Formats: sequence, structure tokens, C-alpha cells
Amino acid sequence: MSGVWGNKLKLSIFGESHGKGIGVVISGLPAGVMIDFDEVRREMKRRAPGQDNISTPRVEGDNFEVLSGILDDFTTGTPVCAIILNTNTISKDYSEMKIKFRPGHADFTASVKYNGFNDYRGGGHFSGRITAPLVFAGAVAKQVIASISPNVKIGAHILSIKNISDDSFDMSALSPEVLTSLIGKPFPVLNDFQGKEMRSVIEKASSSKDSVGGVIECGITGLKAGLGDPFFDSVESTLAHLLFSIPAVKGVEFGKGFEITKMNGSETNDEFYYENIANNITSIKTYTNNNGGINGGITNGMPIIFKVAIKPTASIGIEQKTVDSSTGSNCSIEVKGRHDPCIVHRAVPVVEAVAAIGLLDLML
Amino acid sequence: MSGVWGNKLKLSIFGESHGKGIGVVISGLPAGVMIDFDEVRREMKRRAPGQDNISTPRVEGDNFEVLSGILDDFTTGTPVCAIILNTNTISKDYSEMKIKFRPGHADFTASVKYNGFNDYRGGGHFSGRITAPLVFAGAVAKQVIASISPNVKIGAHILSIKNISDDSFDMSALSPEVLTSLIGKPFPVLNDFQGKEMRSVIEKASSSKDSVGGVIECGITGLKAGLGDPFFDSVESTLAHLLFSIPAVKGVEFGKGFEITKMNGSETNDEFYYENIANNITSIKTYTNNNGGINGGITNGMPIIFKVAIKPTASIGIEQKTVDSSTGSNCSIEVKGRHDPCIVHRAVPVVEAVAAIGLLDLML
Amino acid sequence: MSGVWGNKLKLSIFGESHGKGIGVVISGLPAGVMIDFDEVRREMKRRAPGQDNISTPRVEGDNFEVLSGILDDFTTGTPVCAIILNTNTISKDYSEMKIKFRPGHADFTASVKYNGFNDYRGGGHFSGRITAPLVFAGAVAKQVIASISPNVKIGAHILSIKNISDDSFDMSALSPEVLTSLIGKPFPVLNDFQGKEMRSVIEKASSSKDSVGGVIECGITGLKAGLGDPFFDSVESTLAHLLFSIPAVKGVEFGKGFEITKMNGSETNDEFYYENIANNITSIKTYTNNNGGINGGITNGMPIIFKVAIKPTASIGIEQKTVDSSTGSNCSIEVKGRHDPCIVHRAVPVVEAVAAIGLLDLML
Amino acid sequence: MSGVWGNKLKLSIFGESHGKGIGVVISGLPAGVMIDFDEVRREMKRRAPGQDNISTPRVEGDNFEVLSGILDDFTTGTPVCAIILNTNTISKDYSEMKIKFRPGHADFTASVKYNGFNDYRGGGHFSGRITAPLVFAGAVAKQVIASISPNVKIGAHILSIKNISDDSFDMSALSPEVLTSLIGKPFPVLNDFQGKEMRSVIEKASSSKDSVGGVIECGITGLKAGLGDPFFDSVESTLAHLLFSIPAVKGVEFGKGFEITKMNGSETNDEFYYENIANNITSIKTYTNNNGGINGGITNGMPIIFKVAIKPTASIGIEQKTVDSSTGSNCSIEVKGRHDPCIVHRAVPVVEAVAAIGLLDLML
Repeated sequence: MSGVWGNKLKLSIFGESHGKGIGVVISGLPAGVMIDFDEVRREMKRRAPGQDNISTPRVEGDNFEVLSGILDDFTTGTPVCAIILNTNTISKDYSEMKIKFRPGHADFTASVKYNGFNDYRGGGHFSGRITAPLVFAGAVAKQVIASISPNVKIGAHILSIKNISDDSFDMSALSPEVLTSLIGKPFPVLNDFQGKEMRSVIEKASSSKDSVGGVIECGITGLKAGLGDPFFDSVESTLAHLLFSIPAVKGVEFGKGFEITKMNGSETNDEFYYENIANNITSIKTYTNNNGGINGGITNGMPIIFKVAIKPTASIGIEQKTVDSSTGSNCSIEVKGRHDPCIVHRAVPVVEAVAAIGLLDLML
Repeated sequence: MSGVWGNKLKLSIFGESHGKGIGVVISGLPAGVMIDFDEVRREMKRRAPGQDNISTPRVEGDNFEVLSGILDDFTTGTPVCAIILNTNTISKDYSEMKIKFRPGHADFTASVKYNGFNDYRGGGHFSGRITAPLVFAGAVAKQVIASISPNVKIGAHILSIKNISDDSFDMSALSPEVLTSLIGKPFPVLNDFQGKEMRSVIEKASSSKDSVGGVIECGITGLKAGLGDPFFDSVESTLAHLLFSIPAVKGVEFGKGFEITKMNGSETNDEFYYENIANNITSIKTYTNNNGGINGGITNGMPIIFKVAIKPTASIGIEQKTVDSSTGSNCSIEVKGRHDPCIVHRAVPVVEAVAAIGLLDLML
Repeated sequence: MSGVWGNKLKLSIFGESHGKGIGVVISGLPAGVMIDFDEVRREMKRRAPGQDNISTPRVEGDNFEVLSGILDDFTTGTPVCAIILNTNTISKDYSEMKIKFRPGHADFTASVKYNGFNDYRGGGHFSGRITAPLVFAGAVAKQVIASISPNVKIGAHILSIKNISDDSFDMSALSPEVLTSLIGKPFPVLNDFQGKEMRSVIEKASSSKDSVGGVIECGITGLKAGLGDPFFDSVESTLAHLLFSIPAVKGVEFGKGFEITKMNGSETNDEFYYENIANNITSIKTYTNNNGGINGGITNGMPIIFKVAIKPTASIGIEQKTVDSSTGSNCSIEVKGRHDPCIVHRAVPVVEAVAAIGLLDLML
Repeated sequence: MSGVWGNKLKLSIFGESHGKGIGVVISGLPAGVMIDFDEVRREMKRRAPGQDNISTPRVEGDNFEVLSGILDDFTTGTPVCAIILNTNTISKDYSEMKIKFRPGHADFTASVKYNGFNDYRGGGHFSGRITAPLVFAGAVAKQVIASISPNVKIGAHILSIKNISDDSFDMSALSPEVLTSLIGKPFPVLNDFQGKEMRSVIEKASSSKDSVGGVIECGITGLKAGLGDPFFDSVESTLAHLLFSIPAVKGVEFGKGFEITKMNGSETNDEFYYENIANNITSIKTYTNNNGGINGGITNGMPIIFKVAIKPTASIGIEQKTVDSSTGSNCSIEVKGRHDPCIVHRAVPVVEAVAAIGLLDLML
């Protein structure tokens, strides 16, 4: 069933791209956490469309309204509902897609699943727009995490756009400062020169009505050892479940990921040592961090590191082959409307958001 | 919480490597499906240890006993419990690991999580041995799927061991025959010459007391369009959740996966066309299958294809650095006991099993 | 955790009595069911306050807005969110209750549970007002049930107010006509003379600033045999879970309920017989219906009958003893605000609603 | 789906009366709790059959074996599986019930639900025997509760058998000593004279091949205020869900229950006061306890009190009318086999067990 997730924390998301509104209900939050809603708005602005020439010109303020669960800026402990009304919808752009399925989109599969009753306008419930409530929930989750474990820091950057790569995180020595430095950037990369190259690649795709994808790398520092479970509620299962819920994600890997299969066990095992933190206080660390901070599904106190593959935006202006389900014949389609030539930079706060949501569920 | 998974189908797994027994309870199976338990035994034998020189010599028959939910070989509709008693346990091999944590294993994280009360013998609940009940459940799930949709076929092969690669599945034209041909192979590859090379790599790792990993590619053919959901119960979320529950899995990707990020949208979008199946009967297909048979979290009728990264076996005979938690000092460890130099071939039926489990949950 | 319920159907309810709004998200509805929203409004009006002299004069239109999941009056298959904005709130009435806990209410327990951060205004999330979204969900559920099984009919009446009793349903011969006849009544009873007596009892309680409770009897006809499960998802468990979620419910019984304990097994066992429905078509029935249509947690095709005890409204105008948590001393309180001297008649549509919700979850 | 329950604690029960074995998997237990298995055996003996002349002569030791989750008598934190092998089964007694449905039993409804594939022998999965694993789980839960909150005490007694009543608990002053005094009694009542009368009633029913039922009253003392949630996870919803899972339960009420509907709000509201516990340490109490220790779904620190209606045993030796589904005709049946003329006394530990299970889930 679509739209409900979680164990101790529960999310219900709802809404369609061109319906009245979208939103989320978050149940299971602890009472008494002060929420800085300006900070939530900043997080949501990172994802919001219409901010520069490499994103869709659809301008949506993504202004949310909190209906419940908050009193005088503190969580009350009862469900928080936030809604975002859709204001800037041009439904006529999408009338064709009910019968001509856009390649790479869910128009066909949704039509089969829902017997043609799905809200097809702008992709309906399958629109990337539905990630806005996820970012809201993630922004709240981040603040709740901070109230429980002030040292935890979550941050992500664009590791690559097509064939242009950013520097990678230093897996075994990732610092919270590096993560913090990324937060303010509209196009979050470690190496700004490479970032400029990436933007060129996106602009080039845009000018040829095409699109590109990329990889996001996310890090979490400051976590204690002992979070997560063996098997079904492993940290990897929990985060991967949420990450694959984000539209356009086609791959997720932790630590060295697929690369680890090219190495020997004697290289990949992260050996332990005692680190002196202060006078006679020691902490168990690993020299390397090939496992991305997780052993047996449980955090080991090293930074959690994972990478997420984002496919090129499915909406492109180039003419494509498809079927016309009203006539039962093959045809072609030119997808109109306002598109992002790349959504990777807008997906960065979404990846951080679901990481925060998954992490908070494991922490509660 | 460890051990419980599912929506319409529910699994509870239990057991420790050196305890009395391990097993699984499967709830939510439909009544009236005939289960061929010889076939279940064949599936379990594919995973069982001690079968050749590239696996652990621990000989366990993996003989299961079904306690409930089956009458005269038919499912009754009530929970099926199967148990496997542990018979060949040599606990003294593992006494050291309670205080000296094995690198790459969960000894440290389990000790933190369970305050030292975890069953440390042979990795306890974190042992790969607990995947035997998963294979049981998967073998039952495969037969239930066959009773619902006889055309569905699930099969996997070793795509690579370290740097040696097998041929890849033909994503857009994967046939059930190819999948069926893999089932009987003790070392399932498409290209037997490459398979021989892979075995050499494993034997070489074994002789140097080291270990290697690899990638498994799994395909599912014969599925109808319309299974799965947007967002949290997407096919990708469901399968990835289960796949990351398998010990040693560090990456999962669908369709082109991470490679898709190197392409343009005009290349990655899978264009639709009508295929004539028979007189005037048509079916919607895609020319390519870069999305691995899934759009918007829902099957589109093309083969589901995904890849799973399996890290090198954590247990190696080479001396490694670690900590001695009884003295609070750094030390070294030589892991004794009977180890697999590679678990990729034994993980193939486990990957198929969780694919069947996830799929059945989506189908019910 | 508060607010989320269900297996195949999932509800998330949210809101506080004096917050911005209340509402519900319903996930798991089938696509393509036409919803008559005028009918939904009629159902909600049955529960709405301010309609006569035996209810609170707080006038709330209970006007809902559907934000998602509906297109052109048909369910799309994705989550339906409905919100009701609070318009007529007089928060000053309730300022005292943050420190002086009202007897019979959740002010004290909520304050303990949420460390004083609960929204105390008007009972906050504990207000009976939060049952309005339940009635919305129930009204939708009734229509979805009708689209699946047109013969199913759900209806309830006031079986007693304090010591005045209505006629009981004929358990083994309850007809859909009897249930339908109750729907239109603002004060639903079978025996209108007794209904008049009940209203007198309520008015008398009202004039002495006191309150009364009563029993609601609910019947469901037209159900096929075979719904529900043994043990944890029995029909009784499912319905009782939801019924005890309704504020003020203190007892639930099925069939003869507590009375069945006074009888012998030879009287209470419902004996089976074949009934001729039409030419050569037979149906298995029971002569009696002491088990209320349920055997072993599963429907047997006879009417489901259950009774629900509703306690007297906790809000009364009479001075009561309580504690002042700001001073740590005993004190007294006179609860101000607008109260219902009896909520039984307003609870009737709520009982029907949760019955519909529970039933639909079992049917999907 | 049958057989799985819980949020933080999860139970999976399985088994059939005449299959190989029955059992339970308990997930989510905290690590490091010492379990006294002699105490668990004592609890299970309270429920076991064959102990006197008012129970079925089927002798089952109910000897369980713990397969997992326990090491050296301490919980490891991973799932605990306990199995009980069926030893004393006489399947021929039950051959008739596959086609002639026993009144009051689930033979008919199970046959419909499972299309005739249910294990019909001895009631299969619907047998009261499946409550043995519940008692195991409850006995473990009681000890885990004791490790968290040593003052919590759970106890129940037979409040009535047919028309003979025991004394009731003093709702507002129930002491742990009273509960403890009940534990050792094979026929737990407060008033032993009345208990003797009850036994006479049972023996009389037995001698006339008939059966009787009764009411069980359960109390929980020593709980802190603040457990439970509003709405769907209220204490009442949680406990009622589990209680109605017990075969033969037809009614559940909390506090004054149905009787509360005969009273005025001014009588039923439990007024608060500060009680001096020790020097300057106060506790908030209520003078009365009509709400059974629960306000708004949350514990208020007063004893939890609830009553459970148990119907007369469905298996009786008297000839009854039923249908013969093999011939499609009406017929009669004499139920053979070994029956309990009354199961109320054997249900007492089952009621306590599910109370402990529900409570522990709320406490974790």
C-alpha cells in the first residue's frame, strides 16, 4: 500500500501533483521538542523548484501549514500534520499523458494498477513533488534527533553528474564540519570546480531537451554504536527501503558498496582499535570504514556512508516512441510542461530527509 | 526489532548458529497450495554448507521439520512453522570471540546492542546459517507464486567473483529458459568457462587464508504489470529491504543501476510499443529495460532485473588487528573455525528466496 | 503510538480540539470507487454538534475538504486526505484545565505521558471532536463496502440511556430494512416511545448540570461467511480494537456477550441447518445467533451483533474535587465550556463508522 | 492474518491441535533478563489439561523446548522460539467433524475461509490448545515486566460460573497481596465457599454432558501513570484486541464496564486527590476507580481492572442439530472426544498472560 511507513515513527504521505494539496502526517514524535520552523522552511527551500536555470521554472513556494501536533512551537507528542496547497498547476499541459504513456514515467504502470482511475495530471501521486512532505518530515526528524543526540550530523553532496565526479567523502575520517559546510550550498559539492563542470553538463542536457542523472553520497557522523537490528530491521534495510521510495532512485550502496566485491576480505574487514578520547577514556574505532559504519545491520560508531543512484529525469522534450492506449497503436510523444534537466541537486535534501527519518525511527 | 517482516505475508525468523535450532514461521499463506517438499529440500541443499572444497566443511544436513500449517502436503492457511535443529556445532572454536571482536563481523555491534548478553557462539543470531530458514520460506513462496502465476520464473547467477565476470542477463529479452538452466548448477553462471576462472579465484583466496566476494544478478520473468506501489511499498523498496537483510550484502541496484547515471534521459527512458502476442491480442512492452521492469515502484511487465553486492566473507584465517574488551587493550586475532572462502555461490539461492518472498507479499 | 491503525486499509488521524484543524489520511482504498460526498456529509452531520438541546451548543459545520486521492469523485487508489478546519473555538474556556485536571478526562494522564507538552485546550487530541475524521473515514468505507458487497448493511441504535431501554435487535433475524430505518433518525431508536423517555432522562441530567451514558447496539447484515481470522485478527479483535479507540467506550460484547455466561452450552451453541434460498440453492444458517455471527473469529454469515457501553460524558457543570498541580494541593473545579449532557446519540454514527472501517480492512 | 501481533513486542503463534507441534516466536524482548523457567512451567501447568475431574482428561505435559533467544537462562535480545510437541493426540475421535460442523465451533467458518483445506482434527489451529504458547509468552512477559517495574502485579480470578458469583475486586483499593494469593490456587476465587459452589455447577453440567461458562476478573496493580495512547493504541484497545483473540471470549469491559451506563457522570468521574506517600512525597490518586485505571486510553496509576466473558465450552456430549456438508442435508451430531465441561478456570492464566503481553508491549 502506498504512503505509510515506519515502526516507532510513522509517516503517512498523501497528495497529487495537480490536486488540492499534498502533505504528511508524522506519528510517534516525542513530546516537548522545540521545532524551529524557519529551519524547516530553509530545508524545504533546498528542494523547492524554480530557483535557477537548471531546475523546472514551476514556481511553488512549498509553503506548508502545520495543522496539528505542535503547540507554541513544541511537539505535543500527538500526530503532526503538515499540508502544502498546490497553487501553480497548469493541468492542460498534461492532458495527453492519460492515453499516451510517457517513457520512464509511471503513467503506464499506474494506469494498469489503478485501472485508469489514477490522477494522471502531472504524474499525480507519482510526481517528484510528493517528496516535499518528505523533506518537511526529514527537517522535523533532524531537529528531534538533535534534541536526543546533539552530535549527530547528516549531510549529502552530489558525488557525480553523468561522468563528472566530485571528491568523495573520507570514509573513515568524515567530519561534521564537512557535512555542515555542504548545507548552505544550492549545488552541494565538495569541489566547487567540479561542481561548475557538473552544471555545464546539466545546461548542455537542458539545451538539447535531454536530461542527466548522477550519484548522491550521504554521510552521518556522531552516531553511537548499537543502533539497528540484525536481518529485517538492519540499518541498511531501513535506509534502503526509504531511499528506494524516492522516485528515480535505481541503486543504493553502503560503505564501499559494489566496489567491495573487487577486494579481498583481508582488505575489506575494518580492523578495530582503542582510541584515547580523553584521560583514560577510550572508544572503539576501526582503522578503515569499508562497511560504511554498519556491522551485522547495527551501527558501529563510525560514520555511516551510503551512495544513491539517481536516474536522468524521465521528462525530456525530445520526441519519444510510445503507445496510444486510446487507439491501441504505436505513436510518438513530445512531453510538454516544465521539466528539470536534472533533479540530482534537488534530490540531495530528500536523501538527507529520508536518512533522518530512518535514523530517528531506529533511535526512538 | 529483529526477525519479523511483511505485510500480507509475514515471516518470523529465529535461531542462533550454535543454539538448539533455527527456523521460521510464515503467516498469511493461502490455503490449498500443494507443497512439494522434495523441491524445498533441493532448494535448501543449494545453500547448505559442506558440499565442495570452496565452502565451509561444517556438514549440516539442514534437515527441516514442519510443525504446523501443512496437512497432507497442502497449506492449511494457518501459520507454517519449520525448524532446523543444529547438530554439528563445535562451540569451543568460538570462545575467544566474546571478548576479541572479529573484524567485519557483528561481534562488537551485537555486544553493544545487547549489553553483552548476545549469543556470541559462532556469530549467534548474526550467522549466515540463519539464512537457511529464509531459503525454506523462499522455496515455499516460489511454489505459492507458481500456483497463482505459473509463468513467473525467478533465477539468479553469479555475475562476478572479485574481478572475474560472468556474462550479463539480456535485460530486455531475458527468457525463463535461461533462468531454469541456472537452477541445477552448483555454481550457477551463464558462462562456464568464466565460472571455472571464478572458482580458481576462490581457491586461491582459500589457500592464502583470505576470502573474496562478488555480485549476484537476479531476474524475474513472466510477471504481469501492476504489482507494487508508489513510495514506501515500491517493488524496489520491498526487495531492497529484504536483500539488505541478508548478511554481507552492501549494495543493491535495479536495471542499469549506478550505470544509469552515466547516460542521458533520451537513452535511459524505456520506450513503449505494442507487441502482437497472438491474433489481435497485443501487449505493451518496452524496447529497452534500463529500469529493470519497474516504473514508479510498479512492475511494467518486463523482466525484473537487479544486482546484489556480496562482500568478501568476514571470517578469514589471516591474523588481524582488533581489541580485547576484557583488558581494554589492542591485540590481534586469528579466527579459527570452519570458514567459507567465498559465500557468493551459496548466497544465490538466498537472493532468489527473498525475491520470492517479497514478490509473493506484493502478489497476495 | 497514537493515530495509526490498520492492515490492508490504513488510517492516520490527527488534530486537536482547538488547533488549526483535524483530519484523516486513508491509505489502501481500491481505485475506481465513486464516492457520493453528499452522503458523506449526511453521515458527518449525524455526529456534528449543536443540532438540538441535548447536545453541546458549539456549532461546527464539520465541513471537510478532500485534499488528495479523489479525482472527479472517484477514488484514485492513492491516499485520501480529508481535513476539517476548526472554526468555532473558544480557548479561554479551557485555560484552567492545564493545571486542574478534570475528573473523568485525560488531562492528568496526558500531562504525565507528554510531560506537560500536550495541547490541553479543550482536551486537545483527546477530544471527542477527533471522532469526526473517523466518521468521514467510515462514510467512505461504507461506500467502498457497498461497491464490493452491495448487500452489506451496517446500522446501530441506542439500546439504552441510563436505565431506559430500547427494544433489542432480533439477533437471528435482523433485517437490512430495520437497519436502514434507523439511518435517518436524529435519535436512532427502534421504539420511539422509549426514545422519548430517553430524551427526558438526558434533559433532566442536563438541567442538573450532570450527564448520562448508555449502550449502543450495532448490527451488520448481508455479510458472507469466511471473513476474519483465528486469534489476533479475529473479527472480534479487529472491531473491539477500534471500538475501544472511541473515547468514553468502557465495554464491548458480541452476540449474547456477558449474558452468555449465564447459559448452558446446549443453549448457547448455535445449531446449523440448510436453508433453501431458491430452487436447489441452499445456504447454511444457524437457528439462533448467540455468537453474534462469529465462530472462531470468522464470520458465519449470520448478522454480526455487538454492544458498546458509553460512559456518561465526563464534562459536567457540577463542582468536583481535583488537584491543582501548580500548587500541589487538593482543590475543586467547575468545568466551564459547552458540554453534551449525553454523547450516546452522537456516538451512534461513530460506532457504525469504525465498524465499517474494521469490516473493510477484513474484506480487502 | 492469523498469528502475528504486536508493535515493539511481536508474537507469532502457530500450530494445530493434532499436528506435530505448537509454539510461539517472541521478538523484541530486551536482552539480559534472567528467565526462571521453573516459574514458566508453573504458569503453564495452571492452564494444562488433565489435572482434575472438571477438565478434559487429555493429558498433555505441555513440555516446551526453547530453541533460541536464551543463553544460560538470560534473554539474548534476539527472537525466542518455544515449541511444544503434541504427544497425546487421538485423531480418530474427530474424523466426523470435517463434514459435520460442530455447533459453537469454527469447523464451518474455517471450512469456508480455507476452502476445506484447514486442519480439522481437534479443531486444528482453532483449538484452545493454541493458548498454551500464549501462556508461555505471558509467563516470559511477566518476568520481563518484573525486571523493568518490580511493583507491577497481574492476577485474575473467576468472578462467576454461570449464576454463582465470587466476591469482586475492590477497584480503588486492590492490593498486590490479593493478586498474589490467587496465583497458587488451582481454582482461583476470592471466596472459597463460592468456589465450591461453582465447582458443583461445573460437575453438574459435566454429568449431564453439558457445559457452562463464566466471567474472569483481572487486576493489575503497581503501574505508573502514563502508559498507553489516545485512540488506536489505547490500553483498552491493546488489551481488548488480545483478549478477544482468546477462543470463547465474547465480552470485555474495563472498570465499571456496562454498569457505568446506569450511573450519572457525577458518580462515575473519578475525582483526583493528592496522597502523601512519605515525607513531602505525594502521588495523585482517585477516590473511586470506575474507569478501571485508564483515562483517555492511558493509565492513571490506579489499578487496571477488566472483566472477560467466557462462553460455555462449545464441545458438549449432548446430541445437536447440524448439517452434513457431504450430503447437503440436515442431520444431528454427538461430539465425541475428551471435553472440558468448563474452561473458565483454565482460561484464568491465559487472560493474565495476554494482559502481561499487552502491558509489556506498552511498556517497551
